[in-house]
Amino acid sequence: MLLNQIKMIGLAAALTVFGSSVTAQTELLDAEQKDIANELIETALNSDLAYRIVESLTTEVGPRLAGSEAEKRAREWALKLGDELDFDQVSLEEFTMPFWDRGALHISLQAPYQQDLYGIALGGAGASKRNINAEVQYFRNLRELKQASEGELKGKIAFVDGDIMVKSQTGGGYSLANQRRRVGWQYAEQAGASALVVRSVGSDSHRFPHTGMMSKKDDSWSRIPVVAISNPDADHLRRLHRLGKTLKMSLHSESKWKGEVSSGNIIFDLIGRERPEEIVLIGAHLDSWDLGTGAVDDGAGVGIVSAAAALIATLPKRPKRTIRVVLFGAEEVGLLGAWDYAKKHADTLGNHVVATESDFGAQTIWRLSSNVNPAANGLIDEIAHLLAPIGIVRGGSEVPGGGPDILPLERQKVPTVRLQQNGMDYFDLHHTPDDTLDKINPKELAQNVAAYAAMVYLIADSDVQLRK
Amino acid sequence: MLLNQIKMIGLAAALTVFGSSVTAQTELLDAEQKDIANELIETALNSDLAYRIVESLTTEVGPRLAGSEAEKRAREWALKLGDELDFDQVSLEEFTMPFWDRGALHISLQAPYQQDLYGIALGGAGASKRNINAEVQYFRNLRELKQASEGELKGKIAFVDGDIMVKSQTGGGYSLANQRRRVGWQYAEQAGASALVVRSVGSDSHRFPHTGMMSKKDDSWSRIPVVAISNPDADHLRRLHRLGKTLKMSLHSESKWKGEVSSGNIIFDLIGRERPEEIVLIGAHLDSWDLGTGAVDDGAGVGIVSAAAALIATLPKRPKRTIRVVLFGAEEVGLLGAWDYAKKHADTLGNHVVATESDFGAQTIWRLSSNVNPAANGLIDEIAHLLAPIGIVRGGSEVPGGGPDILPLERQKVPTVRLQQNGMDYFDLHHTPDDTLDKINPKELAQNVAAYAAMVYLIADSDVQLRK
Repeated sequence: MLLNQIKMIGLAAALTVFGSSVTAQTELLDAEQKDIANELIETALNSDLAYRIVESLTTEVGPRLAGSEAEKRAREWALKLGDELDFDQVSLEEFTMPFWDRGALHISLQAPYQQDLYGIALGGAGASKRNINAEVQYFRNLRELKQASEGELKGKIAFVDGDIMVKSQTGGGYSLANQRRRVGWQYAEQAGASALVVRSVGSDSHRFPHTGMMSKKDDSWSRIPVVAISNPDADHLRRLHRLGKTLKMSLHSESKWKGEVSSGNIIFDLIGRERPEEIVLIGAHLDSWDLGTGAVDDGAGVGIVSAAAALIATLPKRPKRTIRVVLFGAEEVGLLGAWDYAKKHADTLGNHVVATESDFGAQTIWRLSSNVNPAANGLIDEIAHLLAPIGIVRGGSEVPGGGPDILPLERQKVPTVRLQQNGMDYFDLHHTPDDTLDKINPKELAQNVAAYAAMVYLIADSDVQLRK
Repeated sequence: MLLNQIKMIGLAAALTVFGSSVTAQTELLDAEQKDIANELIETALNSDLAYRIVESLTTEVGPRLAGSEAEKRAREWALKLGDELDFDQVSLEEFTMPFWDRGALHISLQAPYQQDLYGIALGGAGASKRNINAEVQYFRNLRELKQASEGELKGKIAFVDGDIMVKSQTGGGYSLANQRRRVGWQYAEQAGASALVVRSVGSDSHRFPHTGMMSKKDDSWSRIPVVAISNPDADHLRRLHRLGKTLKMSLHSESKWKGEVSSGNIIFDLIGRERPEEIVLIGAHLDSWDLGTGAVDDGAGVGIVSAAAALIATLPKRPKRTIRVVLFGAEEVGLLGAWDYAKKHADTLGNHVVATESDFGAQTIWRLSSNVNPAANGLIDEIAHLLAPIGIVRGGSEVPGGGPDILPLERQKVPTVRLQQNGMDYFDLHHTPDDTLDKINPKELAQNVAAYAAMVYLIADSDVQLRK
């Protein structure tokens, strides 16, 4: 653990002067609250706490696939982190889940010539019973595959091309591109294909394909292998196809489901001084895919929300409401920790004032969106105003939800806010071996913590009702 | 082949006006020569011929490891290219070479926890007879490894760290960093190590290690496996080492030498109209490493020198001297084609006026260096002056040599010139699977062709003696 020598900057001392400057306000935030929030921002911008948390998690635990022994070590690591950061309560809530194992994969072009392809099995995909050697049917996109008739692809490997994702600040385009990863297998299987290969969903030109979970159909997973190949590999196949070449591939995948295993959520609470039953939930997920060390997805989030709450914990008094950090388990494989949390806390969800998650990397936060009681928009406006100097603009409710793991809570009417990171580079790294610590810019990460710390403090110390 | 529909821009027609504007010059280049060179530049900047050559080579042949069946297909492709581009002579010169096969490699961290590492066997490395499971001895750099005493590393795997290469326009830093790849094995073997693992030599933060050839010692190759791991993997090991963790690795490599195979050089000649025996040699290499499709290294070079010569071939008359394009075989594994060329052409090397090679990617050319008869520097100065509008400055003889494959010719006193590409991104891609077509910017590639076409034409049409 890297954290035992952390020294909080003397926030408590600095804050003692504020009482005297408080004057009557018509705003929803009083002057002391604003001063404290500004002080949190400054402290956070000069702190490397979040970076050290991510460094510790990625170095000492490494990759941590949902349900694996490594994810268990991540939970042990997180329990120690909670103790070191001095939260009021630190707890573990375990649950069970089915374990999908990627297994070995070999995929190569066999015609017009032999060449290895850079592919990765998609989450939930089936195995090849034996080595598949087959002709490739090229589809320009998922729409074309959908038109394949039953049995048309018998004895063939379907390849669904697409396009390199356009980079954007919002990450827009992911959901649409992601359809070939999520549901492509259903059409390939229906048309009788022996396997499905898709252009992986990413905005980079590196040779690493992006993994990710597929979607179930009627509670079943694909029986055929489903493999994503890198953008340059897909470009290559497209060029060969356009030259009129017949493509053949060899493919062998040992992916399989391996029964029930344990996962769990970690909870850190800072108990509210006035209304402890009211919960401001800030989440991130502890698991990662197995390929990188999950620095950007979602070590960064773990660092950001833990550090933000830890900075608030150094204030002389607790905010009025409880701040709850939830480090979800098994996010990547279907939000399993999130669903478990919603189930186990069903009777207190009515007291969840707001929920949010940091799960979009660590580039600079540029927008604060919200979906709260319209009567509470004034509070969010004031918070956005306070965050403007660190480059954050006020958004509306254009971003659906508080983050992936917040979805089950939203369904139970928990309001959400969202601090949106600049996603320009996110899909270069997302779900690839390249998701490693060096991709995080410590200065940008610190800006994230500043925004979270100020926002979470202000909501937690407010009397405004955010629930509709 | 993509080239059969290529239409040369009507250079011949455009040039007929020049005769009348020629006036007496005190310079070494006359007005007609300058006009033709400028016209070549403009034509090249608007031509996609080089890009289409690289696209064809990388798509229709793919990766082409020295001595492989794929390199043989590359030679067949090149012979066709030479015919299509209408050179005066197209020839193949075969030679034999020992074949090193990378084989399968598995390398993983076993302590403090299990994690796959991204490694690649280095060229010429030995195999592990069985799976090696051993403690890792960490060395901060090659200098530290050199101090290991005989037998000190018995039963251990040596890991030689280093630093991520600093990006630079010149690619400076490569030769030094490369020492751990080239000769590290000699010290590891001497100290009794079971295997050597080195931080790979590259300026990127991607998870792909860079391969490359090692150096022989007393005509022998390493008996132990030698593996390069990616920069992020090396960072990871360094952090763990600094935390005081004991590192263990598991490593299995099946690399081996597989006997004699064929390789060859391809030669395209444009026969000089006045002094055909005088040769201006421009080279590139046809082989690539097996990981990428060798677009940047050295498909780009093949495209640049072939297209430059092909543009000159469309002029109404041949330059005075012969222009010879040599597409060398087996460069990556020890300049084998280059040595074979020097041997086979030993009796005409005295007629090689100058030699140069394009083997540093396809980013913009920024400098023209030379190592010619000082009396001929005026000619190079005038050429540089003519290339200034496309961003090229005059260098001196600070860059040793004309390119890797030109080394054997330099040893025989052939003068050299060098058009230096901006190498800022070169070592991000060099010898990795990421060396694919998408990394080439067609506009920058066209600038390369423009510079080569103008320079080569002017030297070939000159009466200036470049030999010392």
